[in-house]
Amino acid sequence: MDFASYITGFVDGEGCFSISFSLRDKLKLKIEVRPSFSISQHKRNLEILKKINEFFGCGGIRFSNRDQNYKYEVRSLNELIHKIIPHFEKYSLKTSKSRDFMAFTKICHLVFQMKHLNAKHLRDIIILANTMNESGKRKYQAAKLLSILDKMKV
Amino acid sequence: MDFASYITGFVDGEGCFSISFSLRDKLKLKIEVRPSFSISQHKRNLEILKKINEFFGCGGIRFSNRDQNYKYEVRSLNELIHKIIPHFEKYSLKTSKSRDFMAFTKICHLVFQMKHLNAKHLRDIIILANTMNESGKRKYQAAKLLSILDKMKV
Repeated sequence: MDFASYITGFVDGEGCFSISFSLRDKLKLKIEVRPSFSISQHKRNLEILKKINEFFGCGGIRFSNRDQNYKYEVRSLNELIHKIIPHFEKYSLKTSKSRDFMAFTKICHLVFQMKHLNAKHLRDIIILANTMNESGKRKYQAAKLLSILDKMKV
Repeated sequence: MDFASYITGFVDGEGCFSISFSLRDKLKLKIEVRPSFSISQHKRNLEILKKINEFFGCGGIRFSNRDQNYKYEVRSLNELIHKIIPHFEKYSLKTSKSRDFMAFTKICHLVFQMKHLNAKHLRDIIILANTMNESGKRKYQAAKLLSILDKMKV
């Protein structure tokens, strides 16, 4: 068994690459961009999350009372760029999640280069993020975020 | 990438080992036992099902209008015993699905040995199947099936 390949298979089913946005008045462009990689599992599968956590050597596991699930999550941009993304570049995803991963990688690199502080690039990020996780729910719709930028005339 | 390990990871998230029961008047014990291994995916992920189908060299893919999903499924007992089960014996599942797999394997072997034609063994199969797929739905509850056997006084 090659555990690295196993993990890609597991993540192709159960993992989530997501970009969330928050409104922050103290930011110049008001919009915060937060990439995260996560895997949620019922508590009976806590062990596999611990093994994945150990394999990547980053991120953490927390319990969500809301849905009674454990979630392994990596939010550190540095760790996403240097540990998570390289794994999936080497061991490629094979479902439609690979498209999410490509958009995710592009956004992480833009944020790592601080491009999200520029309104034009932030627009690109919002539009790109909107193509991800077709079945997921969004706190803020892309149109709403873009209209916030429009109003600032930046 | 080791595709065999990838598949175990994918199945740990997305696969299903199930035992279903049907009532058949023409059978001596009235209860038919049907093991199956399946993976359901949204149509955007049909490609991975085709690759898995090719890897195992058995089973088939069909489209379900009901949930707009494709399902790769192996129902042939011979192929379950000689192709599917050996794969997961070599490349072990790591979530709670490994418990389902153990019960599934035991039941497949019992059916392969025609033990399900004996009321005592059929009871064991019903009880064992009832421990599987905690979150799944069942057409017939174990109690209902056992009561059918009880009534026959076999």
